[in-house]
Amino acid sequence: MKATITGFANSPDRGNGLARDMGVRWACEEVSLPYEMALLSFDELKQPPHRAIHPFGQIPTYVSGDLALFESGAIVLHIAQNHPGLLPAGPAVRARAISWMFAAVATVEPVIVEFDLAPHVEGDRPWHRDRLPLLADRVRLRLNDLALWLGDGEWLEADFGAGDLMMVMALRRLDGSGLLEECPALRRYVDRAQARPAFQRAFAAQRAIFEATNT
Amino acid sequence: MKATITGFANSPDRGNGLARDMGVRWACEEVSLPYEMALLSFDELKQPPHRAIHPFGQIPTYVSGDLALFESGAIVLHIAQNHPGLLPAGPAVRARAISWMFAAVATVEPVIVEFDLAPHVEGDRPWHRDRLPLLADRVRLRLNDLALWLGDGEWLEADFGAGDLMMVMALRRLDGSGLLEECPALRRYVDRAQARPAFQRAFAAQRAIFEATNT
Repeated sequence: MKATITGFANSPDRGNGLARDMGVRWACEEVSLPYEMALLSFDELKQPPHRAIHPFGQIPTYVSGDLALFESGAIVLHIAQNHPGLLPAGPAVRARAISWMFAAVATVEPVIVEFDLAPHVEGDRPWHRDRLPLLADRVRLRLNDLALWLGDGEWLEADFGAGDLMMVMALRRLDGSGLLEECPALRRYVDRAQARPAFQRAFAAQRAIFEATNT
Repeated sequence: MKATITGFANSPDRGNGLARDMGVRWACEEVSLPYEMALLSFDELKQPPHRAIHPFGQIPTYVSGDLALFESGAIVLHIAQNHPGLLPAGPAVRARAISWMFAAVATVEPVIVEFDLAPHVEGDRPWHRDRLPLLADRVRLRLNDLALWLGDGEWLEADFGAGDLMMVMALRRLDGSGLLEECPALRRYVDRAQARPAFQRAFAAQRAIFEATNT
């Protein structure tokens, strides 16, 4: 039975693959797992049927048989643990790879989200212009650490995996800010990930939905 | 062989169990897993030997044999997956429980950290007083969703588990703000978790370190 993934009926990212269903689609494509999409309006997200699966009324969810998951990190981990291709086999290297998944969502993404959202949620406040450089510096701290780790390496650990997928999903939010370009190794890292055929297929699939509803 | 967990030699939380080794200690206590602590100075955290394990130069890490983990969420998950007591056995309910771990660190904790850190990092800025209520409202959004989910329930899903542990670690950062008290069910939820003997043992162990170095 195919899993059903929820996404926005009308995504605020305008088909740029920044909504959180993108990471889940990408994981499915990496392991050749077919899926179906269910598109929800902003109103439907906050109603009891969806909240019974996602307590915070967000996307994505992942439902398959008696499985009812939320949080893109948890869904990608579930897919990676049940299909070969996104996590190494040995217990120690596998647990370390999962460390990177948590680092992406708990250590790197939050400072990027603050920087990324500020113009939208505080752009009209008198302090916004003075505050934005502070937010950029918080992002730089994480990027510098990440670039130091990556060095000349291709991926965070030996092979591409779920940790890279979640990290790249976070870093992609910086597109257009110029911050990623300050660390050329990270710009190349994101480009390398985005060149993967599985990324391309997932990106095209979510873009098609935006285009179908906005022509 | 006992695992070694890193913590602050001089914790900025002053022994209040808010540093991120606390969650890992708590998980160890819940499953009766002995551990050793290695205490690092702020300078040691940023040096190559520690960065080889923790790319962002933070605590905690968890090292045991060939295992070298970072990120408290990943460490708690590793402990929970390898010792009974913190995750349910069935695959579907186990995957859902892991959704709550990611929700704690990726959806709930970031807005709490922004609120909690603002006085320390932006307290001297002219906008701080006007901005703090906005941060409090972002926290309230999450707390209200969480309280709605919890209802009269004791824990997030059927039994206490790793998701509750991570969620309570996030919510405890609100102690003293009054925000938790606006949702009495959440205040009781945190109190219930903190009353667990395993929490008490972990709290006492980290407090003892603070007291030994500050008398």
